[in-house]
Amino acid sequence: MIKIAVDAMGGDNSPKKIIDGIIHHHKFNKDIFYKIFGDQIEINKLIDNKIAKNNFEISNTLNKVSSEDSPLEAAKRGKDTSMWLAIESVKKKDCDIVISAGNTGALLVISKLNLKMIDNIDKPALSALWPNKKGMSVVLDLGANIDCSSKNLFDFSIMGASLFKSLYPTQTTNVALLNIGSEELKGNETIKETFKILKEKKLDDFNFKGYIEGNELMNGNVNVIVSDGFTGNVALKTAEGTANFITSELKKVLSGNLMGKISSFLNIQNLNKFKKRLDPRLYNGAIFIGLDSPVVKSHGGTDYIGFSNSLDVCCKIIKGNLIDKIKRNISL
Amino acid sequence: MIKIAVDAMGGDNSPKKIIDGIIHHHKFNKDIFYKIFGDQIEINKLIDNKIAKNNFEISNTLNKVSSEDSPLEAAKRGKDTSMWLAIESVKKKDCDIVISAGNTGALLVISKLNLKMIDNIDKPALSALWPNKKGMSVVLDLGANIDCSSKNLFDFSIMGASLFKSLYPTQTTNVALLNIGSEELKGNETIKETFKILKEKKLDDFNFKGYIEGNELMNGNVNVIVSDGFTGNVALKTAEGTANFITSELKKVLSGNLMGKISSFLNIQNLNKFKKRLDPRLYNGAIFIGLDSPVVKSHGGTDYIGFSNSLDVCCKIIKGNLIDKIKRNISL
Repeated sequence: MIKIAVDAMGGDNSPKKIIDGIIHHHKFNKDIFYKIFGDQIEINKLIDNKIAKNNFEISNTLNKVSSEDSPLEAAKRGKDTSMWLAIESVKKKDCDIVISAGNTGALLVISKLNLKMIDNIDKPALSALWPNKKGMSVVLDLGANIDCSSKNLFDFSIMGASLFKSLYPTQTTNVALLNIGSEELKGNETIKETFKILKEKKLDDFNFKGYIEGNELMNGNVNVIVSDGFTGNVALKTAEGTANFITSELKKVLSGNLMGKISSFLNIQNLNKFKKRLDPRLYNGAIFIGLDSPVVKSHGGTDYIGFSNSLDVCCKIIKGNLIDKIKRNISL
Repeated sequence: MIKIAVDAMGGDNSPKKIIDGIIHHHKFNKDIFYKIFGDQIEINKLIDNKIAKNNFEISNTLNKVSSEDSPLEAAKRGKDTSMWLAIESVKKKDCDIVISAGNTGALLVISKLNLKMIDNIDKPALSALWPNKKGMSVVLDLGANIDCSSKNLFDFSIMGASLFKSLYPTQTTNVALLNIGSEELKGNETIKETFKILKEKKLDDFNFKGYIEGNELMNGNVNVIVSDGFTGNVALKTAEGTANFITSELKKVLSGNLMGKISSFLNIQNLNKFKKRLDPRLYNGAIFIGLDSPVVKSHGGTDYIGFSNSLDVCCKIIKGNLIDKIKRNISL
């Protein structure tokens, strides 16, 4: 039975959406055990006998990290916040993986304080899932490391490829470096150095496809995209901003006049399909990798469906033996 | 009369689209003189008396830069390519501004070889126009400079603000630095240093709005966005890729079945409005600034409408006294 440590107190509208997410996930996954950290009385009320007794346990604490805390303040709140206790349960091997919808900076810092790095990995990275024309991609780093060496980018390639393989075991893993041109001579020194390292190493688990430009991120030819944390964060957020801009412009024309409204009504099924394809809840969950246990961060603003999808990511990571894959690949 | 030097031989389907673009532009702008560089016989055939005799002149040359040339190869092709001659005519003050739809790298290098830097500007930058919810933004640098110092980013801020003011003289100019968080302490050292410089300088021509994240690029609160060339290029291309991805998903659902087709037909006017709002031809034209004359690069793949819009950008830049604005601001 996979054991997931859940910080029930992080993110907007918690613990309700967290518990509703677990209840929803439990409906379709009877082989998961949820160790839930937070306010026992409130949590018990919300569970309301909707999770089988053998599938959960509540670890009571009233202290919690707030979304306004700086990482340092969060760590100073002590070892009895729901976030700290959830992470600690993974350190103690009580649980296989930990998930929180709380403060990202705090989650990264408290994880680093509690969990060891994987041997030969220099820095952990924040990765996420992106839709592309053919399916999904893994993108990293998304902001955990502003300055990266070629060794860091190489590590990220190994970690990203291992993560993709854990999530999508039947697919071919194609890795590329995010750059501003596709020719071998383009880019800064760090990227060119990483290109050389990846080209020379012949790893069995993935194909190295060279450089990728921003406009190709979503065409699906590559499914693991590697970048320093500054560029990766800008790319992810720019994609988010562009998607918002376009869908808001679309909404304007579709509801701007009567003909727009009538035709949208007629086309409701198709438009819902479109909406579903772009639904951010489907891609919810950033994964912090490089520590000897993965740490999953659900978006703070998601709802119970989004949180349930992040619980799915947790299960796939454990079933796919992510950490073992990284360890094997990094020592090749 | 504004005099524009036009390289007629660059980009796909040239010189036809270039000449058609000039003819289209001439219809609405009778006070512009086009000095056209390229194959005189072919160009004359295409003009076919559709431009008033007093509004153009052809400078004949059969040599041209190809899109596959490296910048070095392009420079080596000599001083009689249509691109070189067009740039040189600005250097000689025969023309006020130069435009080409040809090889970007070659255009930057040949411009730098021929034109002087503006005093106190260390590096020129490539800027472009982006749509946002309230209108348009200027974004720079888009790839001319991979590594940038805080002085470079400061220069870009001055140049970007001056460009925005030249193009949109009645609007307030709000400048921000592209970063991965909005707090003053976020980002790399160069960005933090630039933040300090911009905060201390009190320039009359624009407001400094601090940092902006990728997801806010298109909300319109800021209209001059400053970045190093690596990050700016990734952001621009990621926005382009995301827009392509979303519109292709939308097309799929709108044409996937009969109901989709019927409702799209009913809604054709609104969908065309939407398409027009996102039409890249409206934003065509990157502007290379920092040299003592601006150089405008039209997208190689645009059509005559797009090229005509870039000619409009040329006119606005000259009417707005861009170079004088930069000189005044940089010496404040």
